[in-house]
Amino acid sequence: MEAKALRLPALLHGGDYNPDQWLDRPDILAEDIRLMKLAGCNAMSVGIFAWSALEPREGRFEFAWLDSVIDSLHANGISVILATPSGDCRCPLCVDAFRSWLRDRYGNLEKLNRDWWTSFWSHGFSEWEEIDPPSTIGETMLHGLDLDWKRFVTWRTIDFMEAEIAAIRAVSPDLPVTTNLMGTFEGLDYFELAEHIDVASWDNYAGWHGRGPRTSPWTAWDPEGRDWRLASEIGFVHDLTRSLKRKPFLLMESTPSATNWQPVAKLKRPGMNALSSLQAVAHGSDSVLYFQWRKSRGGFEKFHGAVVDHEGTEDNRVFREVAELGGRLAELADVAGTGTRAEAAIYFDWENRWAMEGAKGPRNDGLLGYKEDCLDHYYRLWRRSVTVDVVDRRADFSRYKLVVLPMAYMMRDDTAARLAEFVSLGGTLVGTYWSGIVDEHDLCRLGGFPGPLRPLFGLRAEEIDALYPDERRTLTMEKGNALGFEGSFESRHLWEAVRPEGAEVLARFDADLFAGMPAVCVNSFGKGRAYYLASRNDERFLDAFYASVLSEVRPARAWPDDLPEGVSATV
Amino acid sequence: MEAKALRLPALLHGGDYNPDQWLDRPDILAEDIRLMKLAGCNAMSVGIFAWSALEPREGRFEFAWLDSVIDSLHANGISVILATPSGDCRCPLCVDAFRSWLRDRYGNLEKLNRDWWTSFWSHGFSEWEEIDPPSTIGETMLHGLDLDWKRFVTWRTIDFMEAEIAAIRAVSPDLPVTTNLMGTFEGLDYFELAEHIDVASWDNYAGWHGRGPRTSPWTAWDPEGRDWRLASEIGFVHDLTRSLKRKPFLLMESTPSATNWQPVAKLKRPGMNALSSLQAVAHGSDSVLYFQWRKSRGGFEKFHGAVVDHEGTEDNRVFREVAELGGRLAELADVAGTGTRAEAAIYFDWENRWAMEGAKGPRNDGLLGYKEDCLDHYYRLWRRSVTVDVVDRRADFSRYKLVVLPMAYMMRDDTAARLAEFVSLGGTLVGTYWSGIVDEHDLCRLGGFPGPLRPLFGLRAEEIDALYPDERRTLTMEKGNALGFEGSFESRHLWEAVRPEGAEVLARFDADLFAGMPAVCVNSFGKGRAYYLASRNDERFLDAFYASVLSEVRPARAWPDDLPEGVSATV
Amino acid sequence: MEAKALRLPALLHGGDYNPDQWLDRPDILAEDIRLMKLAGCNAMSVGIFAWSALEPREGRFEFAWLDSVIDSLHANGISVILATPSGDCRCPLCVDAFRSWLRDRYGNLEKLNRDWWTSFWSHGFSEWEEIDPPSTIGETMLHGLDLDWKRFVTWRTIDFMEAEIAAIRAVSPDLPVTTNLMGTFEGLDYFELAEHIDVASWDNYAGWHGRGPRTSPWTAWDPEGRDWRLASEIGFVHDLTRSLKRKPFLLMESTPSATNWQPVAKLKRPGMNALSSLQAVAHGSDSVLYFQWRKSRGGFEKFHGAVVDHEGTEDNRVFREVAELGGRLAELADVAGTGTRAEAAIYFDWENRWAMEGAKGPRNDGLLGYKEDCLDHYYRLWRRSVTVDVVDRRADFSRYKLVVLPMAYMMRDDTAARLAEFVSLGGTLVGTYWSGIVDEHDLCRLGGFPGPLRPLFGLRAEEIDALYPDERRTLTMEKGNALGFEGSFESRHLWEAVRPEGAEVLARFDADLFAGMPAVCVNSFGKGRAYYLASRNDERFLDAFYASVLSEVRPARAWPDDLPEGVSATV
Repeated sequence: MEAKALRLPALLHGGDYNPDQWLDRPDILAEDIRLMKLAGCNAMSVGIFAWSALEPREGRFEFAWLDSVIDSLHANGISVILATPSGDCRCPLCVDAFRSWLRDRYGNLEKLNRDWWTSFWSHGFSEWEEIDPPSTIGETMLHGLDLDWKRFVTWRTIDFMEAEIAAIRAVSPDLPVTTNLMGTFEGLDYFELAEHIDVASWDNYAGWHGRGPRTSPWTAWDPEGRDWRLASEIGFVHDLTRSLKRKPFLLMESTPSATNWQPVAKLKRPGMNALSSLQAVAHGSDSVLYFQWRKSRGGFEKFHGAVVDHEGTEDNRVFREVAELGGRLAELADVAGTGTRAEAAIYFDWENRWAMEGAKGPRNDGLLGYKEDCLDHYYRLWRRSVTVDVVDRRADFSRYKLVVLPMAYMMRDDTAARLAEFVSLGGTLVGTYWSGIVDEHDLCRLGGFPGPLRPLFGLRAEEIDALYPDERRTLTMEKGNALGFEGSFESRHLWEAVRPEGAEVLARFDADLFAGMPAVCVNSFGKGRAYYLASRNDERFLDAFYASVLSEVRPARAWPDDLPEGVSATV
Repeated sequence: MEAKALRLPALLHGGDYNPDQWLDRPDILAEDIRLMKLAGCNAMSVGIFAWSALEPREGRFEFAWLDSVIDSLHANGISVILATPSGDCRCPLCVDAFRSWLRDRYGNLEKLNRDWWTSFWSHGFSEWEEIDPPSTIGETMLHGLDLDWKRFVTWRTIDFMEAEIAAIRAVSPDLPVTTNLMGTFEGLDYFELAEHIDVASWDNYAGWHGRGPRTSPWTAWDPEGRDWRLASEIGFVHDLTRSLKRKPFLLMESTPSATNWQPVAKLKRPGMNALSSLQAVAHGSDSVLYFQWRKSRGGFEKFHGAVVDHEGTEDNRVFREVAELGGRLAELADVAGTGTRAEAAIYFDWENRWAMEGAKGPRNDGLLGYKEDCLDHYYRLWRRSVTVDVVDRRADFSRYKLVVLPMAYMMRDDTAARLAEFVSLGGTLVGTYWSGIVDEHDLCRLGGFPGPLRPLFGLRAEEIDALYPDERRTLTMEKGNALGFEGSFESRHLWEAVRPEGAEVLARFDADLFAGMPAVCVNSFGKGRAYYLASRNDERFLDAFYASVLSEVRPARAWPDDLPEGVSATV
Repeated sequence: MEAKALRLPALLHGGDYNPDQWLDRPDILAEDIRLMKLAGCNAMSVGIFAWSALEPREGRFEFAWLDSVIDSLHANGISVILATPSGDCRCPLCVDAFRSWLRDRYGNLEKLNRDWWTSFWSHGFSEWEEIDPPSTIGETMLHGLDLDWKRFVTWRTIDFMEAEIAAIRAVSPDLPVTTNLMGTFEGLDYFELAEHIDVASWDNYAGWHGRGPRTSPWTAWDPEGRDWRLASEIGFVHDLTRSLKRKPFLLMESTPSATNWQPVAKLKRPGMNALSSLQAVAHGSDSVLYFQWRKSRGGFEKFHGAVVDHEGTEDNRVFREVAELGGRLAELADVAGTGTRAEAAIYFDWENRWAMEGAKGPRNDGLLGYKEDCLDHYYRLWRRSVTVDVVDRRADFSRYKLVVLPMAYMMRDDTAARLAEFVSLGGTLVGTYWSGIVDEHDLCRLGGFPGPLRPLFGLRAEEIDALYPDERRTLTMEKGNALGFEGSFESRHLWEAVRPEGAEVLARFDADLFAGMPAVCVNSFGKGRAYYLASRNDERFLDAFYASVLSEVRPARAWPDDLPEGVSATV
C-alpha cells in the first residue's frame, strides 16, 4: 500500500472540537470561531463523540449540523480532521473468527498442540471448537494461546480499520488516514497496524510536574520529579511514532493544562505547554493538537484542560499561553513535512514484550522491566542528543551504525540472521541478559541460550538469577579493557551466568553465586562488534558505557557536545 | 407530616436483645431480667434478627414467644423498641421504577439528554428503556445518571419505609418511628429521609483507642491515637443526627467494649464507655443503647462487645462499668427531651458530596477530602465549645450568626440566593475553593466560578491546581489585615487562582504558579461578611482564623473560655 | 485400614518425568536415561500431565508410549511412581452431596439450626434445599456452615481418592498409595486424609535465600533473610508430614534450583539443594524428588528449576550438584525406612484453625497468627534439637512428656479430658490465650473460658484485648518464681485478663488495662503441670521459658547440648 501524503502548508494547531454539545447555543459557536483565530488555531478534529448526534435513532442520520460546522470552519481558514471508534471483543463471532484465524495459521491441530506445547498440564486440544480466548474464568496459562490471541486482536483491529478506510477511499481516494495511537499501549502491535495507515499519530497525556513512585505510563518517571526523565520517555514515544511510518507524524491529542482523570490533576506550569508541544515538533510532529477546544458542561472530562474554559473568554492564563504558542508555530511553518535521519536504533518489539511478560519467571508481578530497560538505554542516547529510531523485528538494520537490543527474549531465526549480517558488515550491537530464549512460537530454544544469537555474542548464558528489589551485586571492569573506563558498578534485578565462547570479557562480577564470571563481554563478528551486558546495571555504568561506545561509533547527533543533565537537543 | 413525640420520663439505657436465641433456656431468660435490673437498664430493642423465628416458614407466623418476652419486660419496667430490614436493589422492578421516576422528573428525553450532557462520549438516549442504573458492567461515567440514581435510591428507600410506617400507624397512630442511621453513610440523603421519621437515631461504632492511618470512618482520626480528634468527629455526627429533626435523638447502638469486626478489636478502656455514652447525651441523645445485651453463642458477631458475656454473670469489668453508668444515667433523667440552641452551622450536603466525589478531578481516588474538610472546620468550633448545627441546602440560614460552607461544589440558585440574604442581613459566611462549580443537574456553571456565589464572595476563581500528598505551598497574611493576625501558613492538596472583584485580600500565596495571588479574601455584602479561603490550609491557620472570626461573631458556646487541646464542652 | 509398606532398598532420588512431551524426540528420551544414571537417579514420577496423551479423545486410550517408557526405566533400574488429579467443586451434584452429608450428620434441621446458631441475623433454614455452600454471592457469615463445608470438602476429597485407590487395589493389592500433600495447606484436614493413604508425601517449594516481608508460605520467614527461621518452618512441615502416618514419608517434589512462579525466582545457591534435601531425609523422608526432571519447552513452568536444562547436557552447575547429591544419597541407603521417637508434641489442628480464622475477632484480616504461634513455639524446640511430633485432636497424648497447645480455640470435651489425663499422669502441658472458646459446633462455651480446660489450667480468662501491630505491653516475672528466671519481657498482638482459680502466678503485666493481672501461670494437676501464657510474648521470653521447661521435662533430643543460633540437629 502506498501511503497518502499529508502535504501541509504549515504546522497544525488546534484540537478536538465538539460543536454538537452546543447546537442550541449559536452565540457560542460564533464565539468559538473568534477565539480560534485569536488562539492561532488552524485545525479542528470534529465528530469524535458525535455518533448519537449523527444517528440519533437507528438508521436516522442527521448531517446538516456537521455540514454547517465544517463550512463555517472552512470559511474561516480552519482545517478539519474527522473520527470513529473500536475495542476488545470476545463475542461468539470473534471467537469463531479466532478459530478460523488459527486454522489458517496452523493448518492442523497436531501442529498447534506442538507449537503451544499443550502436553504441559495436559492441555491438548482435539477439536478446534475446544479453543477459547484466554480468560480468567477459563484458560490463562497457555502461553502460546495468549500470544496468538494478542496477535489475533491486532489482526482483527486492522481488519475493522480496513473496512472503515475502504468506505473513505470510495469517496476520497487521496485523503490520508490515521488512527489515534496511545504511545506504547501493550494491547496492539503498532508496527503491524502502521502498515495499514498513511500517517501515524498519538495522544500524549504525560504527567508533567509529577512526583512520587511511578505507577503508570502517565506519571512521572522519576521519584524526585525531575521532569527530564519523563521528557526522555516521551521522546522515546515520539521517536517510536515517527519510526512507524519513517516520516512526520501528528500529535493528535494533548492537554493545554490539567488531565482531570489523573490521581492528582496538576496544572501545566507557565511555559510547560509550549515546551512539551515544541518537543513533539522537534521529534517530527507536524501538529500540536489538544483535547479539547472547549470544556463540556457535563461528562467524564468536564474538568479536563481545554483551550476555552467554562468561563468562556480569552481572559485567562491558559488561553493566553495557547495563543502565544499559536504565533510561534505559525513562524515554524517551514518545518512541516521535514524529516530526520537516525543512525542509531533501539529495538522495541511487541511480540517480544507479549511473550516475555506473559511467561512466569525470572521476576513476576510486573517486576521484569522490559520497557524500563528500553527507556534506560534510550535515556543515555537522548542525553547525548543522538537521533534515534525505535524499531522492531521488521526493521532494515543496515540503515544504522548502532542497534540497541535490550532483553530480546523472543528472537526469530531470520531476525537473528539479519542482526548477524548487520554486525558482520561493521555495525555495533548492544544486547543484554534474557535474550534468545524462545522462538516465534514461544517455545524455549534447546541447545543453549541465547539461542540463534549465541555465535553473534560469542557466549553461552547458563543461568539467570533474580534479585529482590533492594538487593545489589557489583561488577568490576577488567584492567585495560577495550571500553577504556575502569571502576566498580552496581547491578540489580537480574544477572546471568555467562560462559565466553570467543567473546572478550570486559568486566566480571565480584561476589555471590556468579563471582568471577563475566558481566560485560564484547565479540568481534565480521567487521563489527556485539556487546553483551549480563546484568541490569546502574546509571553510572550505562553512562560510561555509552560514552565509550558512542565515541567509537559516532552516530548522528543533533548537538555535537555533551549538554548538562536534563538537557537534550533534537532535530 | 407532624412528628410523633417520644415523651420519655428518663434517658433510655439498654440495647439489642435477642431472646429468640435462647428460647430453649428459660433459666437464661429469667437471669436476663435480673441482670437488666442490676445494670440499670430500662429499654431493650427486640426482634432485630427474629424474622425466621417469627415466620419460620412462608406464611406461618409465631408471635407467642415475642408476646411473652414483651410482657415479661413490661412487667419489670423495661421499655421495648421494635425493628425490620432494607437494601440497594437493581431488580427489573426497581429498574422500571427508576425509569418512571426519571420520566416524572424530566418529562421528556430531550430535557434529560440536555441535563445529563449525554452528547459527551456520544451517550444520547432515544428511548427510556435504554436507561439502566449505573453499573461497572454498563455505564459508569455519566455523572447525571449517577446522581439521579443516588437520588432515586433515597426516594425508593423512603417509599419502602413509608409502607412499613403505614402498617404501624394503622394500629398505633401515636407510636414514634425511627430508623437506625449510620452516621454520614454516603448512600442515602439523610436530610431527605429524616422528613419521614419522627425521631432520628444512629449506630456509633467509633474505633476508640485506635491508631495508625485512617482507613475507614470507624478507625481513629489521628495517626498518633489522640482520641479527641475522633471525639470531635463523633461530635459532628451527633450534631448532624440531632440537626436532622432539630430535637433530641437516640443513640440506638454502641458497643460496651470491643467491636469484633474491626481489624484490631480493641477493648474499651475503663471509663471509655461512660465517656463516649455521656458525649452522646451531651450532644442531644436521649438514650444509651448497646449492641448487644448478651453475646450470642454463634454467628458473625459472637465476639462483639455485650453487657452480658458468654460467661453469664455480673462478675466482670464490662458489666460493672455498664451498671455504674446505668446509675449515672438515672440521675440525669431530667435531661431527657431537652434541646440545644445553636448559632453556628456547618453545611454538609449529600447531593453536593455525590456530585463532587462522582466527578473526575481535581484530585481522584478518594483524595478530594470533602468530609475531611468539614471535620477540620468543625474541629475548630468544637475545641472552642461552640454549639453547632449540621445543615444542608434545606436549612433556614437566618437562625444562625455563622455558616461554614466548605467546598460547596454543587450550588443551586435558590440556595445561593438564601445564603446571600443571610449575609446581607448581618450573617458571617466562611466559604472555600471548589465552590459554585455545578448546578443541580451537575452541569458546570458558565461565565466564571464560583457561579451564583461570585457576587457574594466578590471574586472570580480562575483555575484550581492539585498538589501531590507531600507537596506544600505557603501563604502570608497581609500586613494589618482585618483578621488581626499575621505570619505564614501552609496549604496542601488544593489551591486556587482567585481574582478579586470587590473582595479585600487578607493573605497571598508566596510562590509557584499562583505567587502573589489572593489566598484569603473577605467581602462585605450588605450588613455581613463572606470569607473565602482559596486553599486547604494547615491547622495553625484554621485555629488563628476561627479565633478571630469567633471573637467577632460570638455564637453561643457551652463554655465561655478556651479549654486545653482535647477538651470540649457541649450542652 | 492396614497401610501398605514401602519397603525401599534405598532412598529414592529423582523427580517428575514427562516423556509425553518428547515422544517425537527418541534421541532425547535415550539421552534422559543416560543422564538419569549420571545424576544418580533411581525413581521417576510419570503421567502427571499425561491425561491428554493417554486419552487423546473421549474414550480413546493410548497406553503404548507409557508402557514403553516404564519398560525402559525398569530396564535401567529406575523405579516408577504414577499419578492423577482433583479440586474444589460446587456443581449441583456436590451441593446435593453436601446436603446429604449434613442430613447424615445432623438428622434434623432443628439440630442443625441450633448447632449453627442460625437465629443470629435470622438465618434459620426450614428446608434442606435452602442450604448452599458458603459463597461470596450468597452466605459467608454463618460460621457453622463454613466449618461444615470445609469438613465436607475433606470428606469428598477422601471419597474421590478412595475410588481411585479401589481401582488400583483391584489390580495391585499391595501397592502403597500416597497423594501429594502441600505442607500446611488450609483447605484439607490432612490428619483426616492421612488415614486413607499408605504413605504421606509432600511438595516443598520453600523460598530459600528470601527476604522482605513474609507474604506467603513460600517466602522467607525472616525479614532479614536468615534462612534458619525458614529451615525451622520447613522442619515443622516435615515433622507434620512424618506424624501423619507416624512413619517415614516421601519428599515428592522440590526444585533443584529456581521456583519460577515466585515474585522473585531466585536460584538455589551452591550447596542449598543438598542442604534442604538432606534436611528432609533427617526429618524422616525416604526420598529426594524434584519437579522436574527436564524443563519443558513451553507451558507455565518452562522456567521452573529442573535437573536437565533446555540446553540439554550435564555441563552445568545445577546438574553437577544434583549428581553429587545422588552419590551421597546412595551412601545413605541404610537410612531408608528408619523412624524417629519423639517425646514432645505440638498440637496443630485443622478444625481449630478453620474455626478460629473463620471467626470475627479479636484480630482480623489475617492478623490472628495461629500458624505463626505454632511456628514460634516449634522454633524454641527445634533450636534445642528436640525431636517433635506435630499432632491434632486424634493424638494419643500419653506417648509424650511435653505437649504444646497454642491457641486451642476449638476444644472438644473429649480432647480436653484426654489432655487432663495426660497431665494428671505426669505430663507437662503448655497452653495459651484464646483457648477453650468454642465447642466442635463452633458455639461459644458458656460459663467461662477456657471452657473445659478451666480446671486443668486452674484459671478463668475474662477478656481478651487486641493490640495494633506496633503496640507492645510488658510483663515482669515474679520474684523467685518456679521457672527460675527473672526480668521483663514484651507482649504483642493479643493479651488476656486472667483470674487464677488455683494456678500459681509466675509473671504479671506491668501497665494499661490488665496491669497487675497474671501474664504467666502454672497449675499443678495430678502428677503433672499445665502452664498458661496469657499473652503472645517475645522471643526472649520464649527462649527463657522453654530453656526452663525443657531442663525440667527432658524430652528426647537429637543433640544433647545447645547449638549456636541457626543450627539444629535432627534424627
